[in-house]
Amino acid sequence: MIRDLIIKNRSYRRFFQEVTIERQTLAELVDLARLSASGANLQPLKYILSCDPQKNALIFPHLAWAGYLKDWPGPSDGERPSAYIIILNDTQIRTSVGCDHGIAAQSIMLGATEKGLGGCIIASIQKDGIQKALDIPSRYEILLVLALGKPREKVVIETVDKTGDIKYWRDAEDVHHVPKRPLDDIIIG
Amino acid sequence: MIRDLIIKNRSYRRFFQEVTIERQTLAELVDLARLSASGANLQPLKYILSCDPQKNALIFPHLAWAGYLKDWPGPSDGERPSAYIIILNDTQIRTSVGCDHGIAAQSIMLGATEKGLGGCIIASIQKDGIQKALDIPSRYEILLVLALGKPREKVVIETVDKTGDIKYWRDAEDVHHVPKRPLDDIIIG
Repeated sequence: MIRDLIIKNRSYRRFFQEVTIERQTLAELVDLARLSASGANLQPLKYILSCDPQKNALIFPHLAWAGYLKDWPGPSDGERPSAYIIILNDTQIRTSVGCDHGIAAQSIMLGATEKGLGGCIIASIQKDGIQKALDIPSRYEILLVLALGKPREKVVIETVDKTGDIKYWRDAEDVHHVPKRPLDDIIIG
Repeated sequence: MIRDLIIKNRSYRRFFQEVTIERQTLAELVDLARLSASGANLQPLKYILSCDPQKNALIFPHLAWAGYLKDWPGPSDGERPSAYIIILNDTQIRTSVGCDHGIAAQSIMLGATEKGLGGCIIASIQKDGIQKALDIPSRYEILLVLALGKPREKVVIETVDKTGDIKYWRDAEDVHHVPKRPLDDIIIG
């Protein structure tokens, strides 16, 4: 059931870093994005894969983690992602990708979840930093970084309460709570 | 397997219009989007559902269909969508949604596919027309219209050939062919 997979597909930010992910696995995930819808079928998205410690270390410093957790600077060494998929726009194909990268990211994350992995779609990126660190030609614009690994935290969905506060938070047991707006609030007609 | 579902989830533009879709079914699909990732968990997306002929008729004239099929003006009466889900941005929550609508659309379309439905993510919309026809407050910005129904056409995936042409086309048997770029072309590092 797709619903079970979607519920299992939470945003994870701490991982068993020692559990490696093969490049072939990442390619299989990108293939799911390849087979997904693209505006006017133009398929402007390109992908860079990373699954070795050296390349991962070039990417990690340029990512922002969990903006609402002010006391947490991001995953410490040992609980960092085992792999990344960087989604880029090939500007020689199209200047704007619409929402293609959202469609692609969701296909990839659902595929990762099915494989027992998890991760986080990261849009808060120091793009210049990654572009330089990986020597990415200027023709390619970084859109998203998907951080992937074997999740090392528990994430639970809750319903937004009367205060309307949507900020996720961590409890004393380090469980990550994510308030979602109720269905009645988001269907308006 | 998510891969099978993604392959089955093609963009369909002709439907058995007489096969109705319940509002409850559309709400279940929106719930899949509700449970999906949202940038900074802000959840700015709102949804309008349509599954009755009168409301559908207010939406249909404002949609553009299959730009590459120059001789086909879109589905004729009898093969039009049975339902629509309009995805809106609530600008009082956030001015820009990033790629939230792509994530949401993919969750909804995969859910629809699992239910034996199919459809098309439409971004080429006369937004003012729909906004007026449905009396949608200006606070909400139309992002996408998802057309849904029981598919009445065959769609096949192919690999882009040496010409690099990505335009979909229909053969003499009205089969819809969609060329996708090969994996080796889209993984660049």
